Amino acid sequence: MADPWQECMDFAVPLARKAGEVIREALTKEIAIMIKSSPADLVTVTDQKVENMIISSIKEKYPSHSFIGEESVAAGAGSTLTDNPTWIIDPIDGTTNFVHRFPFVAVSIGFVVKKQMEFGIVYSCIEDKMYTARKGKGAFCNGQKLQVSKQNDITKALLVSELGSNRDPEVIKTVLANMQRLLSIPVHGIRAVGTAAVNMCLVATGGADAYYEMGIHCWDMAGAGIIITEAGGVLLDVSGKPFDLMSRRIIAANSQVLAERIAKEIQAIPYQRDDATD
Amino acid sequence: MADPWQECMDFAVPLARKAGEVIREALTKEIAIMIKSSPADLVTVTDQKVENMIISSIKEKYPSHSFIGEESVAAGAGSTLTDNPTWIIDPIDGTTNFVHRFPFVAVSIGFVVKKQMEFGIVYSCIEDKMYTARKGKGAFCNGQKLQVSKQNDITKALLVSELGSNRDPEVIKTVLANMQRLLSIPVHGIRAVGTAAVNMCLVATGGADAYYEMGIHCWDMAGAGIIITEAGGVLLDVSGKPFDLMSRRIIAANSQVLAERIAKEIQAIPYQRDDATD
Repeated sequence: MADPWQECMDFAVPLARKAGEVIREALTKEIAIMIKSSPADLVTVTDQKVENMIISSIKEKYPSHSFIGEESVAAGAGSTLTDNPTWIIDPIDGTTNFVHRFPFVAVSIGFVVKKQMEFGIVYSCIEDKMYTARKGKGAFCNGQKLQVSKQNDITKALLVSELGSNRDPEVIKTVLANMQRLLSIPVHGIRAVGTAAVNMCLVATGGADAYYEMGIHCWDMAGAGIIITEAGGVLLDVSGKPFDLMSRRIIAANSQVLAERIAKEIQAIPYQRDDATD
Repeated sequence: MADPWQECMDFAVPLARKAGEVIREALTKEIAIMIKSSPADLVTVTDQKVENMIISSIKEKYPSHSFIGEESVAAGAGSTLTDNPTWIIDPIDGTTNFVHRFPFVAVSIGFVVKKQMEFGIVYSCIEDKMYTARKGKGAFCNGQKLQVSKQNDITKALLVSELGSNRDPEVIKTVLANMQRLLSIPVHGIRAVGTAAVNMCLVATGGADAYYEMGIHCWDMAGAGIIITEAGGVLLDVSGKPFDLMSRRIIAANSQVLAERIAKEIQAIPYQRDDATD
């Protein structure tokens, strides 16, 4: 029997590539910036244009499916995850990078059925790296199979995270205090390329050993989450409990051991869930 | 009259490329790690092999020139900068990245005469990006002319820096406190790709607006320093005074305005100079 979700994936990969071409084209022109939740949380017309392009194409082909898209939610659409096949889309992960032409900008498409991730696509369009994973079939970058690292010793681990776009003084304090605790274990280092999706894909390649962040959204994690697990890694909540796609927080690591070790050091930052109804 | 330093540069560019090939080849094999000043300050046999390769080639061609190389200094060679034509070499800038196969690793070659930077070469070998600059002749990446950004408003600036490899609790505290002050201005964000040379080249491309760091060495800055200035940027000490290549600290920015604004926020960390004699 044919795999219906594989068919959806085969439809979405060229769509992500086309979206990336639109973004690359936009980088050659002037970029007008609008502000969202903070002076560091930015959006552009290209975010909206690319999301509309992706969602309208998929809707035409799969009219019964559900959608959660960063810009649609910003415009008032709901973001409750049901059991229906659901496309979770970030048209430009790394909008601040895009605005500055800092060279890590990704189109992220996750596909979730009955709340389980079925496939994920992250197209890092300036680097021209197409990351994909289908449940049970492995993770790939430009056709090359991905495998997480084997480093279980936190003192020899390289982490990726972000300082984030939240400018609330208490949040900044906790973000930095978490880094201080991790650096003091010690770890080999912490890197930050400015997009959750690309950071997670770097863990999938084995180039970094773990990623953690709080305050991000389901559309930042849905594409890359399954790329991590299909590359042999794990997803965990920052509390050490099971990962929850709508919780706005994640540890994505090469192993359970490393994920739990990081969870021990991290103080949680309270964020309203993506599916909060108030 | 022929430009004698241009001839040196033309000799060094293919040498940097060849060094990058050696590094890429080493990435396909197992990497044995040794520790230097801290558990996060690493070195490998490839660092030493590549430095020996670069220095011996140049020495054969220019026997009267002086050399300051990261691994030669680690092995006991001096690092006093004289007026003699001096090659300042970091065989692998981003050794921790190299060890983890995090994809930003650079060969850095700076050339200084009478303490003035004459040319610089940074080869980001995994990305295959060759950055070069000759005094008065502009900066280039893979043949394309570089130009820093025009952003003079710190609240709209994207910065690059590093958490660094120093694990002294007081140093970590100051590094994070500096980030806290900059984030609170606010700035658009802070990125960290794990190599001083590549961070600086990202400022030269306009992808980031400014870079600052303390505790790095002349071999981390000598190649990329002139790439920044030839792309229209400026170098400044973190105190706001003139930049000093041997001081182990730098602000590299698109403009004097932004560099001075950053200097205002940064608390200096005391480090022994590269040319200290005790």
